[in-house]
Amino acid sequence: MASTAAVAAPASSSSLCKLHLQSQFHGQQSGLGSCGARQQQGESLSALLLRVNGQHCSSSSGGVGRGGFGIGRRAVVVCKVAPGKKTVVIGLAADSGCGKSTFMRRLTSVFGGAATPPRGGNPDSNTLISDTTTVICLDDYHSLDRYGRKEKAVTALDPRANNFDLMYEQVKALKEGKSVEKPIYNHVSGLLDAPETIDPPKILVIEGLHPMYDERVRSLLDFSIYLDISDDVKFAWKIQRDMAERGHSLESIKASITARKPDFDAYIDPQKQYADAVIQVLPTQLIPDDNEGKVLRVRMVMREGVKYFEPVYLFDEGSTINWIPCGRKLTCSYPGIKFFYGPDTYYGNEVSVLEMDGQFDKLDELIYVESHLSNISTKFYGEITQQMLKHADFPGSNNGTGLFQTICGLKIRNVYERILAEGSTVLEGAKV
Amino acid sequence: MASTAAVAAPASSSSLCKLHLQSQFHGQQSGLGSCGARQQQGESLSALLLRVNGQHCSSSSGGVGRGGFGIGRRAVVVCKVAPGKKTVVIGLAADSGCGKSTFMRRLTSVFGGAATPPRGGNPDSNTLISDTTTVICLDDYHSLDRYGRKEKAVTALDPRANNFDLMYEQVKALKEGKSVEKPIYNHVSGLLDAPETIDPPKILVIEGLHPMYDERVRSLLDFSIYLDISDDVKFAWKIQRDMAERGHSLESIKASITARKPDFDAYIDPQKQYADAVIQVLPTQLIPDDNEGKVLRVRMVMREGVKYFEPVYLFDEGSTINWIPCGRKLTCSYPGIKFFYGPDTYYGNEVSVLEMDGQFDKLDELIYVESHLSNISTKFYGEITQQMLKHADFPGSNNGTGLFQTICGLKIRNVYERILAEGSTVLEGAKV
Repeated sequence: MASTAAVAAPASSSSLCKLHLQSQFHGQQSGLGSCGARQQQGESLSALLLRVNGQHCSSSSGGVGRGGFGIGRRAVVVCKVAPGKKTVVIGLAADSGCGKSTFMRRLTSVFGGAATPPRGGNPDSNTLISDTTTVICLDDYHSLDRYGRKEKAVTALDPRANNFDLMYEQVKALKEGKSVEKPIYNHVSGLLDAPETIDPPKILVIEGLHPMYDERVRSLLDFSIYLDISDDVKFAWKIQRDMAERGHSLESIKASITARKPDFDAYIDPQKQYADAVIQVLPTQLIPDDNEGKVLRVRMVMREGVKYFEPVYLFDEGSTINWIPCGRKLTCSYPGIKFFYGPDTYYGNEVSVLEMDGQFDKLDELIYVESHLSNISTKFYGEITQQMLKHADFPGSNNGTGLFQTICGLKIRNVYERILAEGSTVLEGAKV
Repeated sequence: MASTAAVAAPASSSSLCKLHLQSQFHGQQSGLGSCGARQQQGESLSALLLRVNGQHCSSSSGGVGRGGFGIGRRAVVVCKVAPGKKTVVIGLAADSGCGKSTFMRRLTSVFGGAATPPRGGNPDSNTLISDTTTVICLDDYHSLDRYGRKEKAVTALDPRANNFDLMYEQVKALKEGKSVEKPIYNHVSGLLDAPETIDPPKILVIEGLHPMYDERVRSLLDFSIYLDISDDVKFAWKIQRDMAERGHSLESIKASITARKPDFDAYIDPQKQYADAVIQVLPTQLIPDDNEGKVLRVRMVMREGVKYFEPVYLFDEGSTINWIPCGRKLTCSYPGIKFFYGPDTYYGNEVSVLEMDGQFDKLDELIYVESHLSNISTKFYGEITQQMLKHADFPGSNNGTGLFQTICGLKIRNVYERILAEGSTVLEGAKV
């Protein structure tokens, strides 16, 4: 266990967010917890407590923190939200290698913090923690390790290789404000490592192959996203990565995709129908017969009637629009940029679709586009552009994947804030 | 000559607008002139003079008006605008039977008045006069009458059948504020009748086959419109009118269209390139293989860089948009409505194109569309819809022809007002 790992709250505690202060570490800013504040150097603890997201939190120092780890002073602050107010749970479904980690980095950036693995923990932990969010990888709920799967001839996509009971129990516990001891699937060794403690964060993101597969887990989600990479693009990406960078043969790449496909179609793909937002990544239609997979057509399929979520629209809500922003005011290089917006049905549900084909050359284009989108849940003019610029080096920052991931981040922040706003915060002394 | 026909001003006069009052006719409101005011019953002449479009005009009564016509009292008011300020001249080119008269009725309605033939004049006069506008038909400049054309085997489309020298001289004179004695081509007899006096109005519309054919006439135009009916639609309309209503055979209709086509292509069609706005009427693309000509796709091609004229746009100026307004907020019946907007080039000139395919079922649809158009030069919210509703019985009121004709009317009003605003009004006593 990491020295900075959160101490599990008693099972009976319904505390939601905790701030752990360990002020003696090298005299640097320290204390990172899900309450979203860092202690400023030289700032008093009491002053800090008044700053924690505007909530008043009580504290104790010493206590549990001392002892086994030889830490000089540790304070645990618990900000308990009103009964019934729980961790907001977001589900992100996607195949491996589909850009989930980039998505997560964009999401946590919207909240102003950087996501890092739990400090001092298992270096192969799949968990990412930021001030506001904790992202757990559902591979950690594999019930069969690499060898077990090989022995039983099942893929990681197969529900039989996954422990949905435990997934449900732990997500439920986290949602209720209880810490859990979550297993770790070691992607390097292919084995299951000793568990790590996960404290209930403000926003819990469960990402992986099956966040919406199990009905019980699905019922815990406050918002869900499916990252849907088309076979053509997946193939182009795999070729680029596995052939160009890892020296695999075209045949072996084709074979691995073909081998995964039946299970993917049976267990992963059907989750789309439950998602509040589906981001579809397709080959461009701007270049005839393009199969390079560099220029992308990205669609965001947004379900209508979802609580706390109003789909983004272009110009005129509920109508159908094709928009080529490139023209007199905005000049774009070949093959240009094309947007589509319109109502549709998706798995029998009413949805709105926003599509971007092509890519941005420079900032002007993005701010121009942003200024014409509505319901984007930004807090100031140009926030999307600012976020995209901040992470210009992330994959997809010049196309619809980056744009729609950023918008999803803003939407998740909005969902979170609206759920939060529904209840008033009640404070309770930390039980340490 | 009609008793109400304006008295031609001396050739040296630069007076632009005149108000003729003939108060003794049946005790009704009377007096209709190009100053745009009617006398209210019981209102004093001097009070009226202060009302004439906000201009102060001088008057005289008696004088020339008395005499040959036996009229009791006649007052002529002349509102002379500053030197250099002239009648605004609008050109409207179109083939016969293409809806020019409807267009003119929509145009004059924008100015608040109804257009009527000159009172008491030749009942076969082609001229239409309203408070603000005078519309003259360029057929009046035929140099060859029906028999002359037959003899020389030229069509009315042929420049040799038209007197461009006289057309130029008279339009120029009117533009300079001088009245003219314009010939009348009698469409019933096919002969040239005795001329009628045309006084310089605020807005002179010259409509017909050749308003932009002659370079000199063209140079007099402040704004020009070409009504471009596609062959398919022309054919469908002819069939409807000539076959269904007049009992012509399909073959004879085809033959008459074919016979006209070479001259039309040679002399009429090329004028498109000079127009500030071209209204193209095409078969719908919403119904596959439609050839009924009932549902229309209408395009307004608007030239960029024209003084006093900013093209209408949809949502985002200078970009390219396809918009189907029918959706969640607006439901339309089959085949729906589709708009297009975007930049283009037309005869080497930069243009913006606004297109409407389909037709309106009811008011909701039009006001919804109007509210999304920009640069429409309305004076209040919903003015287009109000105009269209007012003339719901005019042909094309439910489709793009009516919509774009109305918009052209608003644009012409705007051109007129901006030209007017450039100079200050100077008043001078009427020379009677």
